[in-house]
Amino acid sequence: MPVPVRVRPYNPAVPARVFAADADRVGQTLALSAEEAAHVARVLRLRSGDAVHVFDGRGREWAARIASSRGAHVEITLETPIAAGAEPQVRYTIAVAVLKGDGTDDVVRDAVMMGAARVRPFVAARSEVRLAALARGGRIERWQRIAVASAKQCGRAVVPPIDAPIEFGALVAADDDGGARLLLAEPSRIDAGATAIARVPRPAAATLAVGPEGGWNDEEVAGALRHGWTAVRLGRRTLRAVSVPLAALAACQAVWDDA
Amino acid sequence: MPVPVRVRPYNPAVPARVFAADADRVGQTLALSAEEAAHVARVLRLRSGDAVHVFDGRGREWAARIASSRGAHVEITLETPIAAGAEPQVRYTIAVAVLKGDGTDDVVRDAVMMGAARVRPFVAARSEVRLAALARGGRIERWQRIAVASAKQCGRAVVPPIDAPIEFGALVAADDDGGARLLLAEPSRIDAGATAIARVPRPAAATLAVGPEGGWNDEEVAGALRHGWTAVRLGRRTLRAVSVPLAALAACQAVWDDA
Repeated sequence: MPVPVRVRPYNPAVPARVFAADADRVGQTLALSAEEAAHVARVLRLRSGDAVHVFDGRGREWAARIASSRGAHVEITLETPIAAGAEPQVRYTIAVAVLKGDGTDDVVRDAVMMGAARVRPFVAARSEVRLAALARGGRIERWQRIAVASAKQCGRAVVPPIDAPIEFGALVAADDDGGARLLLAEPSRIDAGATAIARVPRPAAATLAVGPEGGWNDEEVAGALRHGWTAVRLGRRTLRAVSVPLAALAACQAVWDDA
Repeated sequence: MPVPVRVRPYNPAVPARVFAADADRVGQTLALSAEEAAHVARVLRLRSGDAVHVFDGRGREWAARIASSRGAHVEITLETPIAAGAEPQVRYTIAVAVLKGDGTDDVVRDAVMMGAARVRPFVAARSEVRLAALARGGRIERWQRIAVASAKQCGRAVVPPIDAPIEFGALVAADDDGGARLLLAEPSRIDAGATAIARVPRPAAATLAVGPEGGWNDEEVAGALRHGWTAVRLGRRTLRAVSVPLAALAACQAVWDDA
């Protein structure tokens, strides 16, 4: 049975979205960061006078125009506030074990696209990465760039913060996000008594913790339960670790009517 | 508040899962396909007498043992039927526009992992791939191999069939899967009247159609609605086309209590 939808005409001329953390008020002219300037001038090939949409990463967005563009220096002028994409009503924190290779890049991209308010990477017992290695190599800066790119693509005006990685034990004991604390448990390790997400009442905030490729060890699960976390399952099949954040956020938003 | 879960001891010695389409009865000794034999002998380095689990791709699984292994020729003997992983209660068909690059590989892998019963690739107006190009190059065989690999990894004993790609118009007009026919619509093109998945009553079967990277065109949406499809949305953000099947299946299974 068809639902009454009105199809809007497709408009490929919607202005490109640009991130400017210091965007603040109509009339303001500001210089883009080197990265955003390069994207605007070299990738999108926009010039003075071209229209863009500018978001501040904290939920505000403006129609704007390129005021000047000289090499790596691009200035824009904010013209009109516009409606930013709606944020989820539940405040979601994705706490994720740092995955092998580029896996965490995908998790950050998916978490932003699904409306997460915060991303907290951690290192678990079976992680193949150690904190010391993560401190080198600019991983956090890379994840932050991916978060900006994902926000641009999905239409969000919020760029969630990506925390510096910590040990899982520290994450489990912390309670600073409030709300429901859900440990995503693989079906092979948890008895059928683990809660389906559909059984968790809608909270004001939810932290979803996703383990590494090799899963949680017994102490981690027991420790989380002892600290008041709820073990939840996403089905009877073993999901790839990198897919769990996307699947879990989609499931939560569907059952909590937050989509 | 912790839920009453019993944590099973982690057992890294669970036998490897092997696919054998002609597995049929206890006592049977059968030769593995060249691909499975290579996996067993060269990747897993198993030898005569080693235990494996064998599934037939249609939902049955056995404890088995390697009877002989000589180069590329591996024979196994089925010893005991074992409980196969549970299948979803709703019969899900994922109909997906063939995506750029390896995107469809990811969709097939995710669809199998999420319990899809059938995968139907199609070519839409904005697809960057044409049917004639898909017929060359062994894409379907590649997707079938990915489906087997994903079934092994996620614990399913069912390997869903991957159909040969067709035109979207033919898919929309066909009604051979029965059940709910849901067109996943991007938020930018569909009025707020599009149905949230949480509003769709649980069907016996559901076909989820996911468009290409550039989205549906107006005629495709209108045509689907005319043929009785329901336009559904997954949230207010624009998801990457490659992520939609996973998110949509997770959402459906959560709201339909089928996880």
